[in-house]
Amino acid sequence: MKIAIAGAGAMGSRFGYMLSKAGMDVTLIDQWEPQVTAIRAHGLQVNDKGEMTTVQLPIYYPEEAIQNQLQPDLIILFTKSLQLEGMVQAILPIISKDTKVLCLLNGLGHEVIVEKYVPKENFFLGNTMWTAGLEGPGKVKMIGNGSIALQERMPESRETAVRIAALLSEAGLNAAVSEHIMYDIYKKACANGSTNALCTMLEANLYTVGNTTCAVDIVRAFIDEYADVAAVEGVALDRDAITAYVKTAFDPNGIGLHFPSMYQDLITNNRLTEVDCINGIIAEKGKAYGISTPYCAFMTQLIHCKEEIAGAK
Amino acid sequence: MKIAIAGAGAMGSRFGYMLSKAGMDVTLIDQWEPQVTAIRAHGLQVNDKGEMTTVQLPIYYPEEAIQNQLQPDLIILFTKSLQLEGMVQAILPIISKDTKVLCLLNGLGHEVIVEKYVPKENFFLGNTMWTAGLEGPGKVKMIGNGSIALQERMPESRETAVRIAALLSEAGLNAAVSEHIMYDIYKKACANGSTNALCTMLEANLYTVGNTTCAVDIVRAFIDEYADVAAVEGVALDRDAITAYVKTAFDPNGIGLHFPSMYQDLITNNRLTEVDCINGIIAEKGKAYGISTPYCAFMTQLIHCKEEIAGAK
Repeated sequence: MKIAIAGAGAMGSRFGYMLSKAGMDVTLIDQWEPQVTAIRAHGLQVNDKGEMTTVQLPIYYPEEAIQNQLQPDLIILFTKSLQLEGMVQAILPIISKDTKVLCLLNGLGHEVIVEKYVPKENFFLGNTMWTAGLEGPGKVKMIGNGSIALQERMPESRETAVRIAALLSEAGLNAAVSEHIMYDIYKKACANGSTNALCTMLEANLYTVGNTTCAVDIVRAFIDEYADVAAVEGVALDRDAITAYVKTAFDPNGIGLHFPSMYQDLITNNRLTEVDCINGIIAEKGKAYGISTPYCAFMTQLIHCKEEIAGAK
Repeated sequence: MKIAIAGAGAMGSRFGYMLSKAGMDVTLIDQWEPQVTAIRAHGLQVNDKGEMTTVQLPIYYPEEAIQNQLQPDLIILFTKSLQLEGMVQAILPIISKDTKVLCLLNGLGHEVIVEKYVPKENFFLGNTMWTAGLEGPGKVKMIGNGSIALQERMPESRETAVRIAALLSEAGLNAAVSEHIMYDIYKKACANGSTNALCTMLEANLYTVGNTTCAVDIVRAFIDEYADVAAVEGVALDRDAITAYVKTAFDPNGIGLHFPSMYQDLITNNRLTEVDCINGIIAEKGKAYGISTPYCAFMTQLIHCKEEIAGAK
């Protein structure tokens, strides 16, 4: 089975490494020149709990993947959300009528984009708790353990979903088919949406933000908005359970000392954030459903103001 | 007529200077030791459009004002909002049954505090467009021109209100009795509440914030909350007119390059801000009236988070 990973950042590189280590045929696809150049020149350098390994993995720009007639059986989408649609468009010629596509991006609403280009029966929506960091172009750092939940979008594709999960588990990625992937995705989105932008606005890590008097009230206000929107989509979130779950993120012995992705994007790297896919989408859905989502709306506006003032790109 | 100014920061000092220059009997009262010490040692140093003047003004701690049996006919309250109640309590013995009290603080809700201690017929609520800055203890900088609107709280006190306005105008302070002081205060509170905390969160001046894509939408969301709350109190704000008025604050040829007071408090001086009296009070009133005020609520929480993380005092 030929696997292509479209979007070879931290997470895509981690997955590529683990799959290839398990003997699978993996090709990376990316548009970020420094990453492509570094991996071609030096291989993918992996920091696996302090142990350094180098693995030779083919990496293509989308147009090269097309020229080389790459014919993957499975494409795993792992771009940043802002790059998702551009990537799917760029690799469209290598998506045949039999190609399966698995989307593991953070955030909500990616299925709407992918299903414009990929038939529903070939598309699988997933959610992963694995994490990884980039220590520079071509250098990936594996962090902790994780899991993957994924689900077919059409009942007749259940068997394929089971096969994909088995394949990923073979490589140690701990994947399972979920009966409620939207719940899993919403739960993660709550955690992300209630803390990521907040840490970015306050320029602090999860522990520091969690220590402020208002942190839990703010988190709960966000979770209520996510839950109100999810309810319209038939997903019944347990607000108290999710609030308790999000609070564990503040633990300094857990991920509390971590600076979330938007912080890294905007504060560390002066790049645009994914706020539209994390908070903005809830504000948009809220508007469409006639539900009040002011915390998501205001936070999205504030992050955009901050991006503009910083001249982020 | 003996005038005491309780709260001799930038604005209190400016008023003290202008009133004494007009030959009035003015005493300052303050609790901030560096200010008291500096004015006693060197007089009040005034930067009046680049021209430096020094004026000798008596300045007391509240307990000294009591010991010296200060008997002012008029007390002008000009503390920071967080210090208002403490100041009124501290000078209570010098407020006789005939003492008139004029409150000129920024923000909303001060009348509720003062009227716990001062009979309504002796209390006058005002609003001023004068500005001033402190260049250090004992050093005040006069900025531009301004005006004062004030109003009695009981109909029988109208004549007194007229006399107070005339007295202030004698000193060039351009005061008039208003027929709708709550409208004036709400209008100023809108301008303040929709931009001051925003500049502080984004750590930018009015011009820079005003240049961002979302600025006007955010401003309008705030103004709508102020207007909804004001409506319950019988004050009908013109939302479009006030939005247009607030937008003029972004003009770099006006006050656009100015960093508002909360910015100066928190970012420049690492002090606690007045957010509770500017945005928090609208969130509180909204709650009491059953009106949705999430922008004010969230902004108040965000500023408190930022204060705590900065260790502001």
